[in-house]
Amino acid sequence: MPQLLHFLLDPFGRRIRLSLAEYGVEPQLRDEKPWAPSEMLRDLNPAGLTPVYVEDSGLAILGAEALTEYLEETMSDPVTLLPGVPIERAEIRRLAAWFDVKFYAEVTEPVLTERVIRRFVKGPQGNNSPDTARMRQALANLRPHLDYLSYLAERSSWLAGPHLSLADLAAAGHLSALDYLGVVPWSDYAVARAWYSRIKSRPSFRALLSDAFPGVTAASHYADPDF
Amino acid sequence: MPQLLHFLLDPFGRRIRLSLAEYGVEPQLRDEKPWAPSEMLRDLNPAGLTPVYVEDSGLAILGAEALTEYLEETMSDPVTLLPGVPIERAEIRRLAAWFDVKFYAEVTEPVLTERVIRRFVKGPQGNNSPDTARMRQALANLRPHLDYLSYLAERSSWLAGPHLSLADLAAAGHLSALDYLGVVPWSDYAVARAWYSRIKSRPSFRALLSDAFPGVTAASHYADPDF
Repeated sequence: MPQLLHFLLDPFGRRIRLSLAEYGVEPQLRDEKPWAPSEMLRDLNPAGLTPVYVEDSGLAILGAEALTEYLEETMSDPVTLLPGVPIERAEIRRLAAWFDVKFYAEVTEPVLTERVIRRFVKGPQGNNSPDTARMRQALANLRPHLDYLSYLAERSSWLAGPHLSLADLAAAGHLSALDYLGVVPWSDYAVARAWYSRIKSRPSFRALLSDAFPGVTAASHYADPDF
Repeated sequence: MPQLLHFLLDPFGRRIRLSLAEYGVEPQLRDEKPWAPSEMLRDLNPAGLTPVYVEDSGLAILGAEALTEYLEETMSDPVTLLPGVPIERAEIRRLAAWFDVKFYAEVTEPVLTERVIRRFVKGPQGNNSPDTARMRQALANLRPHLDYLSYLAERSSWLAGPHLSLADLAAAGHLSALDYLGVVPWSDYAVARAWYSRIKSRPSFRALLSDAFPGVTAASHYADPDF
């Protein structure tokens, strides 16, 4: 059985879990914490970074970027997460990169760091208190991103067009991590919320909804598809 | 003639220029400054981000991530920048992502911001003085990355194996931007230097060596293949 080493609240690990489920692969999950990588993870990736996917053969693929394309190259029959001709695939990849680079830097990373990781790892000032100004800024940054998500979700069923794609799974990786923490103001964003409800109802999402990270309780509506 | 909208010192724009040259395509370059995007750029990409590639048909592809895969999907015959079987391609993409994510966050972005962009854009404290502590930290971060580059370059002619690949061009995009600014301590890293000299001697690199960014003079050895 293939294995996936991942940090439960990491948006990239969540995206890979969703992708694998869409491709019909159910890996054995091995929980990792970025502040205390296991020996197995250090052996596979001296940088201590997740996600890492280990095939039955023992072959390991490191990092969400490489893994995303690798899975598509080796598993995309019959399910593809990059449907269409090259220009359509480019648009899907552009959107995925938007969430993975911009959204991550402006929202997910600061929220995760200040709300979760800071409890376990001391900050630059040597303490464990969250940087509340940084957290506030990240939550303010979230709003224009939700506007953009709404704009995309209004045009079509899925973010890059009529078919579910990597763009949806990338966005869902980030949004679901934030939703676990209960910081997404869904009530102000009906269209984005409808999109999230749609993706949350997919069988590939089911495993994520029973996630429980030790010491960080999920928001009460987290597992509810009709939140 | 296709066009490439790019910021001359941006490592991602540099990588796309190198890739296009390796594929045998010579686009018309349109210089952009991230702090003052042109109307054309804003029309093509409301976020004002480069690189943007515009085909003869007018079709635009946005962002280095999407563009990299798009070029490979549409131009990789006979030249491929992702040679090999899927697992080899995964290793190339992992290395490219290492430079584009880790190296960029720890080295290129702070150096570019503090040394170049800060002259034109005020910082969070509302002034134009570089954050020298941030700059110093970035230059300290550069050293372990050069160790890693040396380790890779020692195993084979190119970073991901016997063939030039996207991994080399990604690394060269970052290193050449830093080298323009004269901040790479090459004399302490003979193996990395030999690799850089090798890639710098390729015809695809030639155009980059005559780069001149207004107001920021290139280091004296920048254009010299025997630096």
